Amino acid sequence: MTVVTPGEHIHFSRDEFAARRARTLAEMQRRGLSTLLMFRQESMYWLTGYDTFGYVYFQCLVLTDDGRMVLLTRAPDRLQARFTSIVEDIRIWVDGPDASPAQDLRDILRELGRAGTTLGVEWEAYGLTARNGQRLSAALDGFATLDDASDLISRLRVVKSAAELEYVRRAAALADDALDAAELATAPGAFEGDILADMQSAVFTGGGDDPANEYIIGSGPGALMCRYFTGRRHLDADDQLTLEFAGAYRHYHACLMRTFLVGHADPRLIDMHAACTDALLAAEAALRPGDPVGAAFDAHARTLDARGLREHRLNACGYSLGTTYAPNWMDWPMLYAGQALEAQPGMVFFIHIIVFDATNGLAMTLGRTSLVTERGSESLSRGSIELVQK
Amino acid sequence: MTVVTPGEHIHFSRDEFAARRARTLAEMQRRGLSTLLMFRQESMYWLTGYDTFGYVYFQCLVLTDDGRMVLLTRAPDRLQARFTSIVEDIRIWVDGPDASPAQDLRDILRELGRAGTTLGVEWEAYGLTARNGQRLSAALDGFATLDDASDLISRLRVVKSAAELEYVRRAAALADDALDAAELATAPGAFEGDILADMQSAVFTGGGDDPANEYIIGSGPGALMCRYFTGRRHLDADDQLTLEFAGAYRHYHACLMRTFLVGHADPRLIDMHAACTDALLAAEAALRPGDPVGAAFDAHARTLDARGLREHRLNACGYSLGTTYAPNWMDWPMLYAGQALEAQPGMVFFIHIIVFDATNGLAMTLGRTSLVTERGSESLSRGSIELVQK
Repeated sequence: MTVVTPGEHIHFSRDEFAARRARTLAEMQRRGLSTLLMFRQESMYWLTGYDTFGYVYFQCLVLTDDGRMVLLTRAPDRLQARFTSIVEDIRIWVDGPDASPAQDLRDILRELGRAGTTLGVEWEAYGLTARNGQRLSAALDGFATLDDASDLISRLRVVKSAAELEYVRRAAALADDALDAAELATAPGAFEGDILADMQSAVFTGGGDDPANEYIIGSGPGALMCRYFTGRRHLDADDQLTLEFAGAYRHYHACLMRTFLVGHADPRLIDMHAACTDALLAAEAALRPGDPVGAAFDAHARTLDARGLREHRLNACGYSLGTTYAPNWMDWPMLYAGQALEAQPGMVFFIHIIVFDATNGLAMTLGRTSLVTERGSESLSRGSIELVQK
Repeated sequence: MTVVTPGEHIHFSRDEFAARRARTLAEMQRRGLSTLLMFRQESMYWLTGYDTFGYVYFQCLVLTDDGRMVLLTRAPDRLQARFTSIVEDIRIWVDGPDASPAQDLRDILRELGRAGTTLGVEWEAYGLTARNGQRLSAALDGFATLDDASDLISRLRVVKSAAELEYVRRAAALADDALDAAELATAPGAFEGDILADMQSAVFTGGGDDPANEYIIGSGPGALMCRYFTGRRHLDADDQLTLEFAGAYRHYHACLMRTFLVGHADPRLIDMHAACTDALLAAEAALRPGDPVGAAFDAHARTLDARGLREHRLNACGYSLGTTYAPNWMDWPMLYAGQALEAQPGMVFFIHIIVFDATNGLAMTLGRTSLVTERGSESLSRGSIELVQK
């Protein structure tokens, strides 16, 4: 039988991890942080390869300004960390009525000589609930100064390396495979659960991962939802089917969104599709290096508003994509009015155009993922954006 | 086209929701709370049917002691809340650089006459990150007294109603379907991604949901992991395959866990399977109404320790199951030493026996879901717990 070798299941070279660590240390120095306390799993994955959903309980990766890393987690993740990451120093806290991992963390920080220094903390993390945050604050009260560093690694992650973009392109190909499967399975009377099964199978059989949130699927009135909900139905003879989904590969996401029409097509939906197409292309054209990424939102909004669809659109039209973990594939930043971050080559954005006319029960959507390049943006999808009618 | 009717997609009767609300109000009164601020999606789903992953951003369901409910969420969830829940009063906060939903929440609470009262808060919620928790504390500082009420609804949810148990049994049947699919697909050389696709398809085609965390799958050294990790492989001629997975129906989970052997079987693994079987049956026998649920852990530990497997077992052997949302299907409480909660009829527990011998690279696991009954516990799985060798 095969024994677990440390770091045997990492997906980037040790050189790439070293470069990421160097960039992180430089940014910590710039911000005057002696230490970074990571609670975002995406940060841990990016920095070390550590791949788990163990962040559902208290878990922290510590990086000190001399480059040392210590992971504090529970026993089920000891081997997982050894297998999937380059972290060597793994400490375990034990479940029990009196467990206090925040105090265990303070003891580790004391051992590392961090008393009296300024620590950066990823407070914005699903893995650090408000209650655990309060316990952490209490444990470190008087021990060190705490600065919010939730954005530190997110800002480094937002521009992808060449190695990362290979995975992004694999993810985009898997999303297209799922789109093909969905189109094939959609027909009057088809069961939504069968469509979902074929889409997810296309990703899994292609070596991909679960998405960081559920695929969105809904027909009939459910076509006007842009979140997953339980309770699958069969399509009507005349129907609309909204799908928002991701190919995920090495946890990198590439998303697509479509509304298919089944049976008789309401002419208003055909008009709405034309408006969505214009808005998508306008937003993609506005995604240019050097411009604020909020310009993509503005272009989408201008296009839809000029078509009289202002009251049927949303306040955001997409977001960055990367190696997010559940419950959310929406990475930072979101595309909304006033989003000032400057677009740079290597950024990846999902742009979705969503038009829901609740009064008349009409839904139309269109979305795909683009890479910011030196000269503009490039769609990563091979799929057609023509209206699908079955 | 079909227009969205309020509450048209709820999965329990309005009478059942009314009874749940009455129990919640009684418990709030007992604790001296004027209001409950819910941030746990499972609480919102249980109390109102509201079904979304919109909790990835700031979102709160308010319940006042006169039974009034107000939901504060983002625009993408306005229709979702109308469609899936019985909540009528839905307020929206708007994305933007200056958005401050915690202050919007305070304004709502002032409007509801809650100033100067004691509010119960679900601080322990993935949807309420530590940073949003800090913002909430700041917004409510001096406005009201805040009590931790994270456990209030979890303690009510832990005992399932007859209607809930119908969904639990559907979930258990879907888990068995996934087990059958896995057994069929497992063979020397099989691709893990194909096995995963067949398992998830069994659940989706049966009308089920995504699990609240990824299925665990690993072979070779990966068989010793009990978390999902990216990067699927083909099974060796002689191999071990660990699977931990859930059927999910209306978001109710029923879990199973197995390690299959492929090709030549190491006799030590056959011994470990016998130990796991004894430990599982001992733990199930210890799950009796009136006894602390920690007794199941003790029985499992005693059995494995007597076989010399103490250093290869974990500090917990399962947990309650219910309508949890991503990123975690592990509901409260966990089965570990000293867990004092008394077992009651209607509770549902997943018991998993996990034995990982890292020194020799050997993995064996066995787990299934049981319902506590009037006289003891009942396995909800029709699947065999015999060792599977392919």
